[in-house]
Amino acid sequence: MIKGPTGCGKTRFVEAMAAKAERPLVTVACHDDTTATDLLGRHLVEGGDTVWQDGPLTRAIRQGAILYLDEIVEAREDVVVVLHSLADHRRQIYLDRLNETLTAPAEFMLVISFNPGYQRGFKELKPSTRQRFVGLSFQYPEPAVEAEIVAQESGIDLAMAKRLVAFAGKVRNLQEFGLSATASTRLLAHAGRLMHTGMPPRTACHVGVIEPLTDDDDIRSALQDTANLIL
Amino acid sequence: MIKGPTGCGKTRFVEAMAAKAERPLVTVACHDDTTATDLLGRHLVEGGDTVWQDGPLTRAIRQGAILYLDEIVEAREDVVVVLHSLADHRRQIYLDRLNETLTAPAEFMLVISFNPGYQRGFKELKPSTRQRFVGLSFQYPEPAVEAEIVAQESGIDLAMAKRLVAFAGKVRNLQEFGLSATASTRLLAHAGRLMHTGMPPRTACHVGVIEPLTDDDDIRSALQDTANLIL
Amino acid sequence: MIKGPTGCGKTRFVEAMAAKAERPLVTVACHDDTTATDLLGRHLVEGGDTVWQDGPLTRAIRQGAILYLDEIVEAREDVVVVLHSLADHRRQIYLDRLNETLTAPAEFMLVISFNPGYQRGFKELKPSTRQRFVGLSFQYPEPAVEAEIVAQESGIDLAMAKRLVAFAGKVRNLQEFGLSATASTRLLAHAGRLMHTGMPPRTACHVGVIEPLTDDDDIRSALQDTANLIL
Amino acid sequence: MIKGPTGCGKTRFVEAMAAKAERPLVTVACHDDTTATDLLGRHLVEGGDTVWQDGPLTRAIRQGAILYLDEIVEAREDVVVVLHSLADHRRQIYLDRLNETLTAPAEFMLVISFNPGYQRGFKELKPSTRQRFVGLSFQYPEPAVEAEIVAQESGIDLAMAKRLVAFAGKVRNLQEFGLSATASTRLLAHAGRLMHTGMPPRTACHVGVIEPLTDDDDIRSALQDTANLIL
Amino acid sequence: MIKGPTGCGKTRFVEAMAAKAERPLVTVACHDDTTATDLLGRHLVEGGDTVWQDGPLTRAIRQGAILYLDEIVEAREDVVVVLHSLADHRRQIYLDRLNETLTAPAEFMLVISFNPGYQRGFKELKPSTRQRFVGLSFQYPEPAVEAEIVAQESGIDLAMAKRLVAFAGKVRNLQEFGLSATASTRLLAHAGRLMHTGMPPRTACHVGVIEPLTDDDDIRSALQDTANLIL
Amino acid sequence: MIKGPTGCGKTRFVEAMAAKAERPLVTVACHDDTTATDLLGRHLVEGGDTVWQDGPLTRAIRQGAILYLDEIVEAREDVVVVLHSLADHRRQIYLDRLNETLTAPAEFMLVISFNPGYQRGFKELKPSTRQRFVGLSFQYPEPAVEAEIVAQESGIDLAMAKRLVAFAGKVRNLQEFGLSATASTRLLAHAGRLMHTGMPPRTACHVGVIEPLTDDDDIRSALQDTANLIL
Repeated sequence: MIKGPTGCGKTRFVEAMAAKAERPLVTVACHDDTTATDLLGRHLVEGGDTVWQDGPLTRAIRQGAILYLDEIVEAREDVVVVLHSLADHRRQIYLDRLNETLTAPAEFMLVISFNPGYQRGFKELKPSTRQRFVGLSFQYPEPAVEAEIVAQESGIDLAMAKRLVAFAGKVRNLQEFGLSATASTRLLAHAGRLMHTGMPPRTACHVGVIEPLTDDDDIRSALQDTANLIL
Repeated sequence: MIKGPTGCGKTRFVEAMAAKAERPLVTVACHDDTTATDLLGRHLVEGGDTVWQDGPLTRAIRQGAILYLDEIVEAREDVVVVLHSLADHRRQIYLDRLNETLTAPAEFMLVISFNPGYQRGFKELKPSTRQRFVGLSFQYPEPAVEAEIVAQESGIDLAMAKRLVAFAGKVRNLQEFGLSATASTRLLAHAGRLMHTGMPPRTACHVGVIEPLTDDDDIRSALQDTANLIL
Repeated sequence: MIKGPTGCGKTRFVEAMAAKAERPLVTVACHDDTTATDLLGRHLVEGGDTVWQDGPLTRAIRQGAILYLDEIVEAREDVVVVLHSLADHRRQIYLDRLNETLTAPAEFMLVISFNPGYQRGFKELKPSTRQRFVGLSFQYPEPAVEAEIVAQESGIDLAMAKRLVAFAGKVRNLQEFGLSATASTRLLAHAGRLMHTGMPPRTACHVGVIEPLTDDDDIRSALQDTANLIL
Repeated sequence: MIKGPTGCGKTRFVEAMAAKAERPLVTVACHDDTTATDLLGRHLVEGGDTVWQDGPLTRAIRQGAILYLDEIVEAREDVVVVLHSLADHRRQIYLDRLNETLTAPAEFMLVISFNPGYQRGFKELKPSTRQRFVGLSFQYPEPAVEAEIVAQESGIDLAMAKRLVAFAGKVRNLQEFGLSATASTRLLAHAGRLMHTGMPPRTACHVGVIEPLTDDDDIRSALQDTANLIL
Repeated sequence: MIKGPTGCGKTRFVEAMAAKAERPLVTVACHDDTTATDLLGRHLVEGGDTVWQDGPLTRAIRQGAILYLDEIVEAREDVVVVLHSLADHRRQIYLDRLNETLTAPAEFMLVISFNPGYQRGFKELKPSTRQRFVGLSFQYPEPAVEAEIVAQESGIDLAMAKRLVAFAGKVRNLQEFGLSATASTRLLAHAGRLMHTGMPPRTACHVGVIEPLTDDDDIRSALQDTANLIL
Repeated sequence: MIKGPTGCGKTRFVEAMAAKAERPLVTVACHDDTTATDLLGRHLVEGGDTVWQDGPLTRAIRQGAILYLDEIVEAREDVVVVLHSLADHRRQIYLDRLNETLTAPAEFMLVISFNPGYQRGFKELKPSTRQRFVGLSFQYPEPAVEAEIVAQESGIDLAMAKRLVAFAGKVRNLQEFGLSATASTRLLAHAGRLMHTGMPPRTACHVGVIEPLTDDDDIRSALQDTANLIL
């Protein structure tokens, strides 16, 4: 169970883990209408015959892959409950449509992630779900590391990347604006990539960082003032 | 991500960009019931066979087109989440019905738009979606430019177009009426086109601008008084 | 876009326009469950084959007819959004099920109507929809005209029709009863028709005008007293 | 449009009218899930073929019958809107599934009923619907008439029927109990029929009138005391 | 219409009545999702053919059985409305799918039951439904009778049964705990049956009566103290 | 009916009971969308034929198995009502789709469980359901027993297991944090297993116990301080 704000590198971390472990990675972005059927599979009519099509969860178990459920709190509860028997000592799921019990091989891993700061009141993981996982909390990287990441992702030089990170640091400390999210590493990389194509730094910062953060005119110009000072 | 009020030219801008880039444009007007299936495609039964029909998103990726999702905040969340893997470093979507991963070619572009002033409280793009886009804020054009647009769109002379724009300027400054939208460039073009067919300016302004703005008798006559002064 | 209270003659006006323009008229009464599919058409299974059946909107476009969407605010949002590309400079709809883009011929006209006084708070046309139409506000006709209409519709003589209109005038000025609608031209024609079959005027007024207006005993007898004075 | 409390004889009245007019009667009891499709008809798969099955409304029009929609306010709005074109000067319905317009013959009559005292706030007929009908308000019959009805319906003698009606009169005047309905003619007939089979009057009144009226112990014994005094 | 708290013997009473009347009994436990279709029947596809399958209500009418609808207030409104024509002078239901009107034979009886103390505010029988039935209110039996029932149902001796009933009497008088239900005859029989298998009376009372009544620790030990005093 | 907090061993207890009784165990994890159909079975189209597939409840009855419905309060009400006739003297279910009544053999047992501390207000078992079961309340085991369990489940030595249990004891007494669940036996076993693979005790406690308990930074460090003192 990985917790952390948007754009801090949760997906990249799981991709890196999968590469290191040399295991295939199956990613599912969960949303309001994600149902157990979407994960487990369904019967499809093909020609005149009915064929079963594995869902991503079923495929991941059969391959012994790493299954990554992104934004798990968004999924409907039947999804979450399906994970219960899979995520405790049983390591099994029951496919009622096939009347088949599937036991996960030792290589199979289940990773879930969510953004604790963005949980809308009525959407939380139940304790009985949470307690089936080991937990890790992510934050944005240390400034020096983050600058290196931004430089590498975008192609700009390290000096400019450091200035972007400094700008992000200022924004992250501004709590009085009530932003529902803050300047993520992902946004810095966006701005950096725009600069790398030749866009002036302040404009790149405006369209790549500030506009995605807010629709409010006042906050936008306050953020732009901050950017102009640093860049 | 293009933000701006209704009738300021967002769709026209995207059409112009597509023409300039010489890329096909696929437009989807999102609404409350727009689902991922609507965008990705579905199986249809034709004769006795089941055939797959690409949705607009899938078609746009295959053609390397520009996909324009208008009023994206209206769409259901599963639509928004489908865009996540397409709009970050992966540039991929997974079609679970076909068990096929589609990678977008370099020419493919994704443009979304919405009207930040009209967002109904409970409908907002999630930060994790917003932070996958570069942002542009649109406003109505400068008076001189707007008059030129109105004249060209409607066929009336520039002097009359300027008077229409002056009227719009007045209306846009009237915040005490609590209008949920204001006199857009589109409405001015409507009024201009009615004048061009011979309708008296004040009547054209009434049916082309004022009636679409409000159903309130008092506001309507206040606006008409303003129109009568200028036209 | 025609706005006006119930029973003031909106539908009749559109029918008259269609007759004058010598164009076929396609009318759709919108309601809570009207969907885009209802308007655009659907595949039906007939015998063993699947055939496409045009909906009223598609038929109207193909015939270059006048399409009249009555009580448009009642329809679901996907209906409204379908109209967007049809009602701006594009004049097109995209039928995703047929993968076909339909362009409206010059003769095609789109008329929508609603009753602004009856909009239930949460149901309003979005500005982006309203601003695609030219607007007309309807009221009940001038007394002399209304009497003529009632006489012609019902067969009673003009003197009695004038008395009915006088009664309606009184009722329309009574705002203290909190009626959700008032005595419409349609109701007067009903009462007139009942009189024409020999029913006494006061009874005709009771069952034809007063009972349809309210279920409240006190208001009913107040209205009947007013009727008794005039008829 | 017939309005009146439950058990006052609305259905019986319509049955009597139909018998007198020598027209077939088609009755539909509306409820929360009554849809336009339920009234208009639907395609059914029979053997390998698809056949159309008329709904009660369609059948009633084809036969020139009297269609009686009981508790119309309970039906979903699409039902109500279907009636609009049928209940004004057009007298037509459009069956989109058959692409057929059905015009009602002169003999066809449409009767709707509801209980104005039981309308739950959010459920009311729209003015545009009400104003398409002529209205009649029903109450319980005069005591003498009601006693005759009860005697005839149940087989008890007129003296006992009068006492039942006297009891009902007391109950109907008791407004302090907050009963959601009161002792209807139907309930009196029930009690009468039980007496006719030999049940003691007070017991018959208890199980036939009082228990159906309330679940509250205190109100129940107050009502029984009243019954014991009179019977 | 039988009203009474849970576990007082409503179902047993109806079973006994059916046995005495020598009529088959058809029982339906109603719930939130019980629809008219569930009661009336539906078309099923079997092999290549479509066959009609009677629902319990239709079967009960055809057999002249006693139909028992348990917890009727839980059913959806379309169920309740279907009963209207069946439960008044018409004694008919119309099966629209079969286009067939079914008249109930003289032997057919309709029994409904509910627990008036457990009705959740928004769920009540409409007066127009209630007034179609004769009503009976049930309570727990007199102590002497109840002890006999418990002894016979469980096999324990009458002395112990009397002590259980005495305990229940204490619990039923404890209103200060805000229990949503109280110690029913059914629970006493459970405890008795556990004692009959050799379980100590206090334990049997704990797991058979007290645990089913509440999850609250404090109330549980208060009830256990009461049990310990008597048993 | 087994009640108890998450991770206290309810599922393990039922598994142990089933093994001791030498009966097969059928487990169903209930959720928001669990319907009666999911439990009873459904018709599936296979090839051209329709075949019936037993659901877990039907299978359990036919095999005389132990059916374990975990988190029963989450299931939809139609599930709960299906259990009513099965859980009282009748021991029957009626499969309406097969028109078949199934009587449970003597070996069949029905076990339900839920967490009384986690019931969200609007979700409670109805008294008529609760009173059909014998009840057992579970808590976390006594410290000595719990340490033994943790040692055996994880492979760590008893001394360390005792320290983990001591830490859990502290956490369970901390009510001021408003945690929606507390350190369960399951979490202690997780931490123990991580230590057994060589992870330092404090880290194991952090990712295995503390992160799953809360997303709050302050509570997290308070809990970590407690852990650091003991481990």
